[in-house]
Amino acid sequence: MKIDIIAKDKVTKARAGRVKTSHGEFDTPAFMPVGTQGTVKTLSNNELDDCGVQILLSNAYHLYLRPGEEIIKNAGGLHKFMNWDKPILTDSGGFQVFSLAVLRKVSDGGVEFQSHIDGSRHMLTPEKMLEFQTSLGSDIMMVLDECVHYPCEYEMAKRAVVRTLDWAKHSKERSEKDFDFRPNKKQAVFGIVQGASYKDLREDCAKMLVKMDFDGYALGGLAVGEPREITNEMTQFTIEFLPEDRPRYLMGVGEPQDLFDAVSAGIDMFDCVVPTRNGRNGTAFTSNGRFSVRTAVNAKELSPVEEGCGCYACMNHTRSYIRHLFNTGEILGLKLVSLHNVYFYQSLMKKMRQAIIDGKFAKFRADFMERYETKKKVVT
Amino acid sequence: MKIDIIAKDKVTKARAGRVKTSHGEFDTPAFMPVGTQGTVKTLSNNELDDCGVQILLSNAYHLYLRPGEEIIKNAGGLHKFMNWDKPILTDSGGFQVFSLAVLRKVSDGGVEFQSHIDGSRHMLTPEKMLEFQTSLGSDIMMVLDECVHYPCEYEMAKRAVVRTLDWAKHSKERSEKDFDFRPNKKQAVFGIVQGASYKDLREDCAKMLVKMDFDGYALGGLAVGEPREITNEMTQFTIEFLPEDRPRYLMGVGEPQDLFDAVSAGIDMFDCVVPTRNGRNGTAFTSNGRFSVRTAVNAKELSPVEEGCGCYACMNHTRSYIRHLFNTGEILGLKLVSLHNVYFYQSLMKKMRQAIIDGKFAKFRADFMERYETKKKVVT
Repeated sequence: MKIDIIAKDKVTKARAGRVKTSHGEFDTPAFMPVGTQGTVKTLSNNELDDCGVQILLSNAYHLYLRPGEEIIKNAGGLHKFMNWDKPILTDSGGFQVFSLAVLRKVSDGGVEFQSHIDGSRHMLTPEKMLEFQTSLGSDIMMVLDECVHYPCEYEMAKRAVVRTLDWAKHSKERSEKDFDFRPNKKQAVFGIVQGASYKDLREDCAKMLVKMDFDGYALGGLAVGEPREITNEMTQFTIEFLPEDRPRYLMGVGEPQDLFDAVSAGIDMFDCVVPTRNGRNGTAFTSNGRFSVRTAVNAKELSPVEEGCGCYACMNHTRSYIRHLFNTGEILGLKLVSLHNVYFYQSLMKKMRQAIIDGKFAKFRADFMERYETKKKVVT
Repeated sequence: MKIDIIAKDKVTKARAGRVKTSHGEFDTPAFMPVGTQGTVKTLSNNELDDCGVQILLSNAYHLYLRPGEEIIKNAGGLHKFMNWDKPILTDSGGFQVFSLAVLRKVSDGGVEFQSHIDGSRHMLTPEKMLEFQTSLGSDIMMVLDECVHYPCEYEMAKRAVVRTLDWAKHSKERSEKDFDFRPNKKQAVFGIVQGASYKDLREDCAKMLVKMDFDGYALGGLAVGEPREITNEMTQFTIEFLPEDRPRYLMGVGEPQDLFDAVSAGIDMFDCVVPTRNGRNGTAFTSNGRFSVRTAVNAKELSPVEEGCGCYACMNHTRSYIRHLFNTGEILGLKLVSLHNVYFYQSLMKKMRQAIIDGKFAKFRADFMERYETKKKVVT
């Protein structure tokens, strides 16, 4: 896998590109909505299509526990199981094991843990997660990594990097053998750079991974609670060690301002639950900032969530109606705001991309952020 | 309002018709999905359209409490509030007051009750409910009635009929005055026949209502727990006193076999939460009976909920996937089975109607029921 760079911004390090996968191409910078359990919460595939989604993320950890490998294999892989025929990236489960699982025991071989659902015991190894993602048929597979919390002491961060690199090596080796579900090795494998907020660790990790020659590189262990300045500093610093011709993916990011920061630093791919999780609590993202549809001020508001927005929710419903749906606990409310947010994120990425191509990215960013910050009403 | 009778079955009393409203026509026999709080649970309007829904029901009682008259008036009525431009029938709230409200006090003037949501005190009078439905702009408004439980002693049932008739009179009178929201008196008003399982009461009630000359007639107080034989007996008996040229509506019914029974007796309209409530617990209706998508037998089942069904769920997803969605508590599962069920009900009514027109209703009924009963797997 390579990324075709179509345009580079002259002021920032932003780049517009296109990535080919075995399920079609996607444009970058790309935002992947999160379909944790094989579904982007509240939305159906036709709605994702209508939002312009070109690639989505699903979580190997969750799918491994439920429905499990056998059921997805039986369907012919994750694409067929979900009936989603566009690209899918699957997370390795590293982040989830470190955030959700209980009684976790990390050793050099892998992670032993108890399921957060039923307490059942499992052992994840880098090889096993690679094999599982191969069964899923993901277009992009992530290697198993060790993700540390913020703040993290240097020695602990260093140990995690050593292990992450060791696991990356095992994953890479495993990925080079043939699998039933991997004809022609069409599934890409991304390495994950760890190193917490320590530049020397990030640099070492990035350099070692690049030597292993992955299809793309992710920045992990960021957006885990550290100040935005550190996220940006680590991103800008680390990206210098990554090759130009491979996609760069900042995991778990973020709010619109985070996306601008990272795109400016040269990141190509993102995933985050922010648009959908917020959608389900009634928080909508708009060009004028985010706001809660549920507040009393919207009781009689006959305008849509965002004037001029082309999403189904905005084309069809008022804030007054959507607020009523939230007040009465109606599922349609959760869907309408999730749908709007996913649409908003896709449109934002599309506009960023066009601005990069048109050589106007810095101005687009400044204009967007001025409007977004000035008018924003953070209610939740 | 009249019903145009297009065809009458020669074997049963089934009839195929068409009813004109100020928001377009609907074909009969018609099944109205229930949009209790101004939304058919889990479904958006485009999905209802795709299912072929021509008219839906909403509940005045619920809308009266939330969001309340002011907010719906502010939007320009219920159609605009929901953005549904096809016919809407609104229930008067009689059934809900008698089933949901607490500390209910019925007097000749109306019903005093406490909201089931916040305990606030309200007084519903026949006039007030008529006025409220006028504000809603419903195409068909139901009069306030007193609905008794099953079984019900004769004297109590009789008192309820007397009150229902008195309230019907007041409603009718109120409906003949002009309202802001009722230009040209385009909103139809239906009377409701009560009388529990007592033929003389049903007969009296029906005759008196017909004298008052309503736009249509509903049978209320049935499907409230009595054996199916009584429902059928009362329906067949009462219908004889209703005029041919007005729509007849059996409230709160039902399962497919109930619909066949009632259509055979000459009923034109139905509403029931059965397709959507069952959809949300994973029970699907099919030509082969109903079954639960959640059972283990569907774990690896790659067929759709119903082979050959044209709904979005069946055209796109397997039982295996939908079962996974239920297992993991994903909202998409609730929607997919609700969608299928609403589609199934609409298709069933369409097929019944065509069979009546083709003079083959009795055969269609026998064939359908044989397949439905023989293969049915009642799991929930």
